[in-house]
Amino acid sequence: MSEVLELGKRAKKASVKLANVSTELKNRALNAMADALIVNAKEIIKANKKDLEEGKRRNISTALMDRLLLNEARIEDMARDLKEVAFLKDPVGELVKGRKLPNELEVLQVRVPLGVVGLIYEARPNVTVDAAGLCIKSGNAIILRGGSVAINSNLALTDIIADAGVKEGLPENCIQSISTADRAAVTELMKMHGYVDVLIPRGGASLIQSVIKNSTVPVIETGVGNCHIFIDKSANLNMAKEIVVNAKCQRPGVCNAAETLLVHKDVAEKFLPGILRKLQERDVEIFGCPITHSICSDVNEATEDDWKTEYLDLKMAVKIVPSLNEAILHIQKYGTNHSEAIVTEDYSAAKSFTEEVDAAAVYVNASTRFTDGGQYGLGAEMGISTQKLHARGPMGLEALTSTKYVIYGKGQIRS
Amino acid sequence: MSEVLELGKRAKKASVKLANVSTELKNRALNAMADALIVNAKEIIKANKKDLEEGKRRNISTALMDRLLLNEARIEDMARDLKEVAFLKDPVGELVKGRKLPNELEVLQVRVPLGVVGLIYEARPNVTVDAAGLCIKSGNAIILRGGSVAINSNLALTDIIADAGVKEGLPENCIQSISTADRAAVTELMKMHGYVDVLIPRGGASLIQSVIKNSTVPVIETGVGNCHIFIDKSANLNMAKEIVVNAKCQRPGVCNAAETLLVHKDVAEKFLPGILRKLQERDVEIFGCPITHSICSDVNEATEDDWKTEYLDLKMAVKIVPSLNEAILHIQKYGTNHSEAIVTEDYSAAKSFTEEVDAAAVYVNASTRFTDGGQYGLGAEMGISTQKLHARGPMGLEALTSTKYVIYGKGQIRS
Repeated sequence: MSEVLELGKRAKKASVKLANVSTELKNRALNAMADALIVNAKEIIKANKKDLEEGKRRNISTALMDRLLLNEARIEDMARDLKEVAFLKDPVGELVKGRKLPNELEVLQVRVPLGVVGLIYEARPNVTVDAAGLCIKSGNAIILRGGSVAINSNLALTDIIADAGVKEGLPENCIQSISTADRAAVTELMKMHGYVDVLIPRGGASLIQSVIKNSTVPVIETGVGNCHIFIDKSANLNMAKEIVVNAKCQRPGVCNAAETLLVHKDVAEKFLPGILRKLQERDVEIFGCPITHSICSDVNEATEDDWKTEYLDLKMAVKIVPSLNEAILHIQKYGTNHSEAIVTEDYSAAKSFTEEVDAAAVYVNASTRFTDGGQYGLGAEMGISTQKLHARGPMGLEALTSTKYVIYGKGQIRS
Repeated sequence: MSEVLELGKRAKKASVKLANVSTELKNRALNAMADALIVNAKEIIKANKKDLEEGKRRNISTALMDRLLLNEARIEDMARDLKEVAFLKDPVGELVKGRKLPNELEVLQVRVPLGVVGLIYEARPNVTVDAAGLCIKSGNAIILRGGSVAINSNLALTDIIADAGVKEGLPENCIQSISTADRAAVTELMKMHGYVDVLIPRGGASLIQSVIKNSTVPVIETGVGNCHIFIDKSANLNMAKEIVVNAKCQRPGVCNAAETLLVHKDVAEKFLPGILRKLQERDVEIFGCPITHSICSDVNEATEDDWKTEYLDLKMAVKIVPSLNEAILHIQKYGTNHSEAIVTEDYSAAKSFTEEVDAAAVYVNASTRFTDGGQYGLGAEMGISTQKLHARGPMGLEALTSTKYVIYGKGQIRS
């Protein structure tokens, strides 16, 4: 039997037991997992060193090296995150709906775990711990497949938290990592229909596309964010400036950062020179439409590709549009249904924008950077769904659950 | 451009408009569609005749011919169904959750249509009308792909209801059927990621497996029901008899019919002879385990295959189990997570069964035949989901929706 199939079978078995574990035991296990991280910090750092050395040998970027690095402070952060998950409300067992039918059958819809969650992700090893914590709290077994650059760190973390959980009383095999860096294991994980209930890819667009294309397991698509900010003619332009700078510059490498600025033609001449200067001072490279270029000649000319690109970088496309409607059409054409914002003082414009723009999160007069489980008060997140099935936007504990109908009768039959 | 791609593009466009159509207009359109069916009954029956003749020529079964047949009474039924959908509550626009964050951002989660729904189904042409009605009510465009035996009926029905909807004011192309019987069209529909938001296959196991294997569009798996009834040692045996006969015989060809009877060993000798005689009187063929065979020698011997088979027929597998726990293990091994029932008077047994059996619907002292949108008070259904992602059990209007976050700010930026 292949490793992945074996992990799948074990996870399935574990999930059946874990589904009915009490909230109290799950919380105790989460706290024990947190403590185990602190106690075993040296071992984690030692495993991480191997990854860092291999990373250096493979000449990976400084940014990636930084994301890969684990030190005592970061290990303490992971432990604190686990303890916070223990404080979140257990979604399992919630009575979602219930009614007595005319024939006196009582039909209850109750919240249950999904079962087995598969997670495919890239560099940061803290995802290993965060995702495992959310899955344990929501009663799901998890199979983790992190990036190959972090494999030693991930395996060490998995061992430590899985052991701590079992010692506290969790079923065996609730938390498992795939131990091989072989890409064939990922392909196999995608075909584990019947063992894995949902597969969540977190990472670049090509990873996500590959999972969508090849998975027979239901997938939750995450994260690609070609986000827009539209400055309406009625906008408070000072507010607009703050929001654009924040959405572009506060953390340009993440999916909820803004990539394209759309400006209503009536305010373009007044608004553009100031905001572009501000962005350029922050080292943002501008790719402007011809009108933008005619107003501010020191910008690059945008090509069709710029409207499509999620830069994830200090770059921004800028387009002047003749109307709110044209802004909405642009977003419908190029957006990825992640986060979209309008800055306006016009009530009707705000209403049209929120109704007609189809995205996980639609903002009026706020930065797109707020699309985040922590910010929304979900406590933590497994990623941000950009599909419409099952979960949309930041996925907290509830997104890791399903429901089942429980029906209490007294001998009813169907006539 | 291929037909399917063209339908997909048109549906996508239509869905954007339909998402914001008022409840009142949708209801008027549903009523107009119903009236149009009645007015055009002759045309429908004429198209249906073509299918029936072709069916006869292809020698399809009497049962299939009956499912294919449309007459005035059946057309009136379809019209009535549409009018009933008009009476259901519009799920779109519901405020699911909302809160003001500490930074005064107002975060609302509102219910929105999925967008474009693809439905692949088999013989019965009334599915065309039912599914279109549910999609219109929930604000979704639909692309229909019925069985090739019903192609003329389906195209006639689609034309009539689509036209009636547009005349009443619905956007063009909300309801479209694929006009070719070519199977390549189905394959293409499965690859319409980006145009189709969900694909629902309704039909036999091989159709469903093929969609799961090949679709890049998110799928909702439906319908395969290897359903069990467990007769506990504490069961009221008269009640048990009624429930078993109902679950097996009331309509054996459907997914919520029972396929395997599990009987606690302590009541086997008392219960089996009576129930098996009763089933045999109703022409049910029995496939029993060795102990069943030792009690009632006039039954076939069950093989491993019998535990796995969804007969959809007057056949039933029977197994004596030593305990409640063994019954649950059997269901975990062979069940398809559809509908499972226990008959018991023991409170703890009922509790264990409902907690440990993982299925869309788990019954205590009632027939599995109740798993149905109409029975649960959902009004109508698009099928019965046996997966855990997005929807589980009978799928009514709400299963055809997603949510989006709408966030109202006053200039908030992330620090």
